[in-house]
Amino acid sequence: MAITRESIEESAARIAPYIRRTPVIAVDSSDFGLTCRLILKLEMLQRTGTFKFRGAINLMLESQDSDEPIVAASGGNFAFAIGHAAAILGKKAHLFVPATSPAAKIDRVRATKAEVTVIEGFYADALEASRKHVANNGGLLAHAYDQVEVVDGAGTCGLEILAQVPDADTVLVPVGGGGLIAGIAAAIQDDAKIIAIETEQTPTLYASRAAGKIVDVDVGGVAVSSLGSKRLGDIAWEITQRYVNDSLLVNDDSVREAQSAHWSTTRLIVEPGAAVGMASLLSGVYLPRSDETVVVLLSGANVDPASVVS
Amino acid sequence: MAITRESIEESAARIAPYIRRTPVIAVDSSDFGLTCRLILKLEMLQRTGTFKFRGAINLMLESQDSDEPIVAASGGNFAFAIGHAAAILGKKAHLFVPATSPAAKIDRVRATKAEVTVIEGFYADALEASRKHVANNGGLLAHAYDQVEVVDGAGTCGLEILAQVPDADTVLVPVGGGGLIAGIAAAIQDDAKIIAIETEQTPTLYASRAAGKIVDVDVGGVAVSSLGSKRLGDIAWEITQRYVNDSLLVNDDSVREAQSAHWSTTRLIVEPGAAVGMASLLSGVYLPRSDETVVVLLSGANVDPASVVS
Repeated sequence: MAITRESIEESAARIAPYIRRTPVIAVDSSDFGLTCRLILKLEMLQRTGTFKFRGAINLMLESQDSDEPIVAASGGNFAFAIGHAAAILGKKAHLFVPATSPAAKIDRVRATKAEVTVIEGFYADALEASRKHVANNGGLLAHAYDQVEVVDGAGTCGLEILAQVPDADTVLVPVGGGGLIAGIAAAIQDDAKIIAIETEQTPTLYASRAAGKIVDVDVGGVAVSSLGSKRLGDIAWEITQRYVNDSLLVNDDSVREAQSAHWSTTRLIVEPGAAVGMASLLSGVYLPRSDETVVVLLSGANVDPASVVS
Repeated sequence: MAITRESIEESAARIAPYIRRTPVIAVDSSDFGLTCRLILKLEMLQRTGTFKFRGAINLMLESQDSDEPIVAASGGNFAFAIGHAAAILGKKAHLFVPATSPAAKIDRVRATKAEVTVIEGFYADALEASRKHVANNGGLLAHAYDQVEVVDGAGTCGLEILAQVPDADTVLVPVGGGGLIAGIAAAIQDDAKIIAIETEQTPTLYASRAAGKIVDVDVGGVAVSSLGSKRLGDIAWEITQRYVNDSLLVNDDSVREAQSAHWSTTRLIVEPGAAVGMASLLSGVYLPRSDETVVVLLSGANVDPASVVS
């Protein structure tokens, strides 16, 4: 089953009654000390506070005939999205979350009616636990990023960008396991330049591109709860090879600076993994032309808001 | 000089290069436990974090020929807007702010290049000090809400609502001294029902409507730094008499509940004075029909974000 603009359009029609069409805002880039044309895509205003809800609800609508409980592992955002979607659709869910994720995220997952199991370690450990659970007890395993329905769902955010910013030159997209960028790239294709941004401590796509194949990486740092996949998804590898123009790394200090700048300049709360796009601009890691229209995709806000105030 | 839809359209053209056209987002009202059609107008994403920037920049562009420094008093938001506009236009400003305003607001005013004087007491005390200063030292006094250019500027937000939500039935508007609602009402006129919302401890418009004339009120409570004018403006009195359908009061607890709901449900930070619209819905003070399209105007976010997390 291929991921195409058409399959994403079908998903968009399917999930439209459930998602929020998140707005964009054009901001004078001089407010951030920049010189490009700057558009922010406010996807952190999505239900559950991240883009993850798009893929979660798409997956659950596609598998609605099954009576099995849905089982998922995630740093927190996908688990919360699945738990929330399950509550809306009246389905059962069992969610595995790593103990290293921020309390703000784990609390949100617990607030859904789903069963929650907290696993020592990082996302990879929670993923292994979820697989074991399904092997022993059954259930429908939902992968947080390497699953067609999830990527199709994420891609619907890309369709909105195409419609809202038809003259976009460049879209800056955060990358964890690659589900978001795969969907965005499959939706936008060659209609804008797509730049992948990760932190130096979560270089999943960057390292794989450097090696010419998918490789495991060690993960850590400020964005680990949302970008901390050790390994890129196969779907993401195939699509990003085709449509992603460049892959860039930012450091944790620039991420914190970007979070602070988003708050002081636009009153937006952005979690570390979603602040990498602005971090790449503020730090000069990505240097747009002054007439370039840059869309910064703000993918989530599940963070203690006190932590963004400098 | 009358405030009309035409004068507001002229102001919109004048300030367009300086302001952000703030987006709206449609939200499933069941996420807030409500049943109406719900649209949020994200005006707190405006430059300086409140709608005040519209009036401030409009006023300063209209008086650009004068060499005199601009002098203003405010609970913080208008002062910050004037200070920011002055910095952009290369003008001098002297701002009077009451010591009772939150540190988060006073800090923002201090961060502009303007001269700042902090006055013991509330807004009325800062206003008196600013008037004395101009009488003794000269300068161009900018009134935070009872001045044509300021109301015209605020009205541009109403024009955006008309364009963004052409089928709006009702707009819920926070009221302090009345500058915002006067502008919104003059822009929207009879194209939607306009409901004024204040807190019980800042009932400036409510008390005047009850008395049939402008009366002074005592002010206090959680929203005092943005809604804490003791007296409605003359401009606002005239326009609200004509176009405002109802005036409602919410209590401070419901304001805090609304702030918390905005954060948990939409990841938006809203200051107390801007949360009164949602407070009126959550508390049932305003009860829309289930098919009613309600626009909640979120007018500002100059607040410590840690304070909104319940």
